[in-house]
Amino acid sequence: MSDRLTMALPKGRLLKKVQDHFGRYGIIFPDEDDRKLVIEDTSGRFTFFLVKNSDLPVYVSHGIAGLGICGEDVLTESQTDLLKLAPLPFGSTRMCLAARKDTPPPAGSGPLTIATKFPHFTRTYYHKLGVAVQVIKLAGSVELAPVLGLAPYIVDLVETGSTLKANNLYVVQELARIRVYLVANPAYYKLHYKEIEEFLEMLDIETTEPSP
Amino acid sequence: MSDRLTMALPKGRLLKKVQDHFGRYGIIFPDEDDRKLVIEDTSGRFTFFLVKNSDLPVYVSHGIAGLGICGEDVLTESQTDLLKLAPLPFGSTRMCLAARKDTPPPAGSGPLTIATKFPHFTRTYYHKLGVAVQVIKLAGSVELAPVLGLAPYIVDLVETGSTLKANNLYVVQELARIRVYLVANPAYYKLHYKEIEEFLEMLDIETTEPSP
Repeated sequence: MSDRLTMALPKGRLLKKVQDHFGRYGIIFPDEDDRKLVIEDTSGRFTFFLVKNSDLPVYVSHGIAGLGICGEDVLTESQTDLLKLAPLPFGSTRMCLAARKDTPPPAGSGPLTIATKFPHFTRTYYHKLGVAVQVIKLAGSVELAPVLGLAPYIVDLVETGSTLKANNLYVVQELARIRVYLVANPAYYKLHYKEIEEFLEMLDIETTEPSP
Repeated sequence: MSDRLTMALPKGRLLKKVQDHFGRYGIIFPDEDDRKLVIEDTSGRFTFFLVKNSDLPVYVSHGIAGLGICGEDVLTESQTDLLKLAPLPFGSTRMCLAARKDTPPPAGSGPLTIATKFPHFTRTYYHKLGVAVQVIKLAGSVELAPVLGLAPYIVDLVETGSTLKANNLYVVQELARIRVYLVANPAYYKLHYKEIEEFLEMLDIETTEPSP
């Protein structure tokens, strides 16, 4: 029987960063290939599953993979109870409120109409501030909402800001820094505590999770 | 003031089909260009908004576009109250139950575990049959769920079947034929009834909606 740890990795923007980072610690795996969903690292310690970013918490919470690498944005929206073992030193980004250049920053206690792919984050953030929000959930191209008149404000991840610029939008306010986490299925963490701790030590990271 | 009708069109697979079909009736608009979200047809009758498939009902239900072209799959999941004016003679596809080749068809009254991008359709379909289902919602690449062991069955749109084949899956059963509809915002339909009727007559289609 193989004792490889199972870990779900997100396809797309983060995968290359994970590959580079893990490579420094001798965990080498091949480049993304759409046909290969299950890949093994050359050290014999890991089996990786490549899944869609937003589906990653589903695979980890159902125990298909014991570990996963996932942005806080996706974790928050998934509403799953995964353990956040430790933040990783790459891939962090900003969750921002943005608007058209002719729209002033919001004033007072709302109600604000906001289009976003992150309704849970947005509601929680503004509720804590006591600001009423009407959230319109979109699946993509949120920057079109102010352009087409669906909502004056959007909440979205901003990296370079070039998408905002192209649509004549500006960052009204940075709401949160979104980090990338190593997460675990709670039952899997208990069963594989020793191997996971060794892995964390190897990566020079400390978890805030108590030992089970 | 322009009296153009406003219509949301889905980016992607359907857009070319809409363009070809409308072109036969003299409604000509330029090819998709990611930078142009608002396009006008050369006859002066329409303003089109290009939006993401799954966001289309949001734009029509909020009245940003009065009309839209949308698959029944997206309409069902959106849970919006749009008027389905008429089915269109292109783009129809099949919603199917699929599984790995070594998984037999489900027998009895469940419970079935099904991964899908279409949780609302799936629950409604099986509830009507009195079959208990546990639905796992995924955002993409549903065909991986049986491969990785997340769920033995999936409910998904099947066109050529090549994705299923590549993952060693088969169609257990066709559940529904999914058609593409011309939809309308109910208030917009009342306000623009005459122009919309003329448009439908031009396309040789009859709506089942009563005149307001």
